[in-house]
Amino acid sequence: MLSRVRSAVAHLVSSGGAPPPGPKSPDQPEATSLLPAAPAEAPRSPPAKAGSGSAAPPKTAEARASFSRPTFLQLSPGGLRRADDHAGRAVQSPPDTGRRLPWSTGYAEVINAGKSRHNEDQACCEVVYVEGRRSVSGAPREPSPSQQGLCFYYWGLFDGHAGGGAAEMASRLLHRHIREQLKDLVEILQDPSPPPLCLSSTPGTPGSSDPSHLVGPQSCWPSQKEVTHESLVVGAIENAFQLMDEQLAQERHGHHVEGGCCALVVVYLLGKVYVANAGDSRAIIVRNGEIIPMSREFTPETERQRLQLLGFLKPELLGGEFTHLEFPRRVQSKELGQRMLYRDQNMTGWAYKKIELEDLRFPLVCGEGKKARVMATIGVTRGLGDHNLKVCSSSLPIKPFLSCFPEVRVYDLTQYEHCPDDVLVLGTDGLWDVTSDCEVAATVDRVLSTYEPNDPSRYTALAQALVLGARGTPRDRGWRLPNNKLGSGDDISVFIIPLGGPGSYS
Amino acid sequence: MLSRVRSAVAHLVSSGGAPPPGPKSPDQPEATSLLPAAPAEAPRSPPAKAGSGSAAPPKTAEARASFSRPTFLQLSPGGLRRADDHAGRAVQSPPDTGRRLPWSTGYAEVINAGKSRHNEDQACCEVVYVEGRRSVSGAPREPSPSQQGLCFYYWGLFDGHAGGGAAEMASRLLHRHIREQLKDLVEILQDPSPPPLCLSSTPGTPGSSDPSHLVGPQSCWPSQKEVTHESLVVGAIENAFQLMDEQLAQERHGHHVEGGCCALVVVYLLGKVYVANAGDSRAIIVRNGEIIPMSREFTPETERQRLQLLGFLKPELLGGEFTHLEFPRRVQSKELGQRMLYRDQNMTGWAYKKIELEDLRFPLVCGEGKKARVMATIGVTRGLGDHNLKVCSSSLPIKPFLSCFPEVRVYDLTQYEHCPDDVLVLGTDGLWDVTSDCEVAATVDRVLSTYEPNDPSRYTALAQALVLGARGTPRDRGWRLPNNKLGSGDDISVFIIPLGGPGSYS
Repeated sequence: MLSRVRSAVAHLVSSGGAPPPGPKSPDQPEATSLLPAAPAEAPRSPPAKAGSGSAAPPKTAEARASFSRPTFLQLSPGGLRRADDHAGRAVQSPPDTGRRLPWSTGYAEVINAGKSRHNEDQACCEVVYVEGRRSVSGAPREPSPSQQGLCFYYWGLFDGHAGGGAAEMASRLLHRHIREQLKDLVEILQDPSPPPLCLSSTPGTPGSSDPSHLVGPQSCWPSQKEVTHESLVVGAIENAFQLMDEQLAQERHGHHVEGGCCALVVVYLLGKVYVANAGDSRAIIVRNGEIIPMSREFTPETERQRLQLLGFLKPELLGGEFTHLEFPRRVQSKELGQRMLYRDQNMTGWAYKKIELEDLRFPLVCGEGKKARVMATIGVTRGLGDHNLKVCSSSLPIKPFLSCFPEVRVYDLTQYEHCPDDVLVLGTDGLWDVTSDCEVAATVDRVLSTYEPNDPSRYTALAQALVLGARGTPRDRGWRLPNNKLGSGDDISVFIIPLGGPGSYS
Repeated sequence: MLSRVRSAVAHLVSSGGAPPPGPKSPDQPEATSLLPAAPAEAPRSPPAKAGSGSAAPPKTAEARASFSRPTFLQLSPGGLRRADDHAGRAVQSPPDTGRRLPWSTGYAEVINAGKSRHNEDQACCEVVYVEGRRSVSGAPREPSPSQQGLCFYYWGLFDGHAGGGAAEMASRLLHRHIREQLKDLVEILQDPSPPPLCLSSTPGTPGSSDPSHLVGPQSCWPSQKEVTHESLVVGAIENAFQLMDEQLAQERHGHHVEGGCCALVVVYLLGKVYVANAGDSRAIIVRNGEIIPMSREFTPETERQRLQLLGFLKPELLGGEFTHLEFPRRVQSKELGQRMLYRDQNMTGWAYKKIELEDLRFPLVCGEGKKARVMATIGVTRGLGDHNLKVCSSSLPIKPFLSCFPEVRVYDLTQYEHCPDDVLVLGTDGLWDVTSDCEVAATVDRVLSTYEPNDPSRYTALAQALVLGARGTPRDRGWRLPNNKLGSGDDISVFIIPLGGPGSYS
């Protein structure tokens, strides 16, 4: 399966974003139709970034790829240049004319204030059709009425770091991996009975589940554990993240796909919203003014114990350069023999320990808040890519400490009658660094109340208001918020997904 | 420090529970006074358990120890025999006459219906004085007004398995380990300024904290992380659990201390209640009818991912006998090549995988609910002891998968004005297996409302009501609840700690 997605990406990257030409492959009839269309004209070289010299970047696949923006923005070459301008930081949204995003989804983004050459966020919004898996022989079986395919709605935000390649590739391919994982489940998910324990070795044919042949010891296993349809979708999304990560590992040399990215993904399937997060983006539902968190952030602080445990169990991963213990600050050699505050992988509290020679190593986890780092390098602990990431001036790989697995939360859309003002808000950390959940909820209320409930442009207006509110305006040599604090200098991207109202999704 | 506690336990166990005789050691003036007093007469042999033959058990230290009950019950030899009678299952509480437990704490317990020879639960309730650490030389320093000691209130429930030895030893010693850990902190906790980064190498003398000498790299470490007083107490409790576990490892041969135990411990210190739980006991606060969970249970189901990750990272711990993957039931050899539902350590959802030869191994984690097991053996994943526990008919040790570290939750008693009906309820799983949090809250309301608010016996009456409600009455060849369902056949122990009212704790 990976190889099939891989052949598609080869076309993607080598053609600078254009889908592979020619007739659809019989094996993936819907594949090309789901690719974001390439811009009408090839993007030109971006204007040189202030302070980075005026030489045009080499026209490698990587350079081209990292300059692309989501196709649904329908940017002209001129628009693409404006979107890439760190000085103006113009907010980008899909045009008011033309085809709307599914569900009348709102979207807005803005480039950073100069922290990286291009906007390293990427976004994707698609309706994806999943056809049931064919048999291994390739001969299509007789379709039965129950073997109709499934559609899922998909939104993804990808916040890249150390280059835009991983974010771009993930934004173009992760939903295909999810589709591949769901192919086995097309029949199962449409059948109200519990999922079968086994599929036959021939993909697409559910095998027999015969609980009468249980073997001992039975004492702790009186019956077979029940698995829900919902947990199958969760498992499909989890495995899709892992396969996407493996693909990034395999593609990184051939296609110059560098760096890594956080991924925040929403899948709507059969009445349920699945929110999968790996990184420090965030999703909240604002429903009747109430805030429902739909994700949590994965950082060196929130994952300290996981990281320390790994360093403790696999000390070779620390390369003799790091200690898995945490100290309130770097230990100095003059403190040898003194007793200093520390925290081990099993502890949430602090205690004192006598400082020994190996405590002088740099701590695996250090710093606080936005400055927290793993191995003094990276501030986010889950995501895709980063296969080449090494400790600065060292060959020690950091990837073993990073997890590509998302946390998936499920929200049953049928359990509540939603009104047009109920929305799911997705934002990269550029939004959340300067905007609290409550401020977002207040903006939801303020902006949506100024539009008619059936005006589909209200959700993009809301996304724009959130991005503008986090970016601020240029004043006193910086981008500043109304309270004169600094706005976010990061890339900022926001999806607003209406949960009820005009964007009907039946 | 361990050696000092160890010498005390040698006396304890060898004398069948009596404290070491003679004058107090100058090094631990409060040690002996905190030991539970031995029963006035040596306990006699217990009556033979139904079906286990009538031979009196050998009078080894182990046998004697596992027959003891908490000293605060003040059981006479006859009372001890009744408490050990599986047929009568008489509920035991401290006598209404004599000294009350601190805070007018209520307590009740009952023996199991025959699942083990003796009651393997143990309990402890103490007021513990912590003197500041003396200097290494042993010469007492001049006490300053700020160097006064600290008192903490302590409650512990210990639910033993595979023998009562670990539970009994932990019930007698864990609070001493906590006291030892707090000795360094006596001054620090009474000083409102933040804890010092370093103590000097001479215990008891806080060292200088000089943040001006920070060394680079500073980028992720602009200042020293702030550590709270509260987190020091949490760290002290965590390390005390670990040292208690190490001591059980060291004592298990010499003193025949077998088995393991869950530990649920409450420490009240300087206005805050610390609830530390390692195992499947549970603590809830019932405050004005509202339920505040103060612990969570650690079982093969709740800790599945921690266990699987360990098996994945350290496959040698699985001994070629187990697989770290989870399946809905044991895989059968005829299913080789089929695709079966499974869950890996990174997954919360399920997916299908092709069954290979090594999937035929027994799963590390199997079963559901009370029947869930690690390595088909043990149903609880945190606690003290179990150093000798092996997989049935195998030499594979299970201890590497068990954690002795508690989760500690903190409740600030000063943040709320408590009334006499607000209580902290601690119970072993014998209570919670058949009683929901809501049922406990309803019993709190029902029982306490029938007593005057200043009647100190109301809390023991409540504990008795909860134990009786979980045990049921003998009917239809079993212990049955009013709804005719089976009551708990397990040992049941309950503490009721009043959070306001007559048991003043200023």
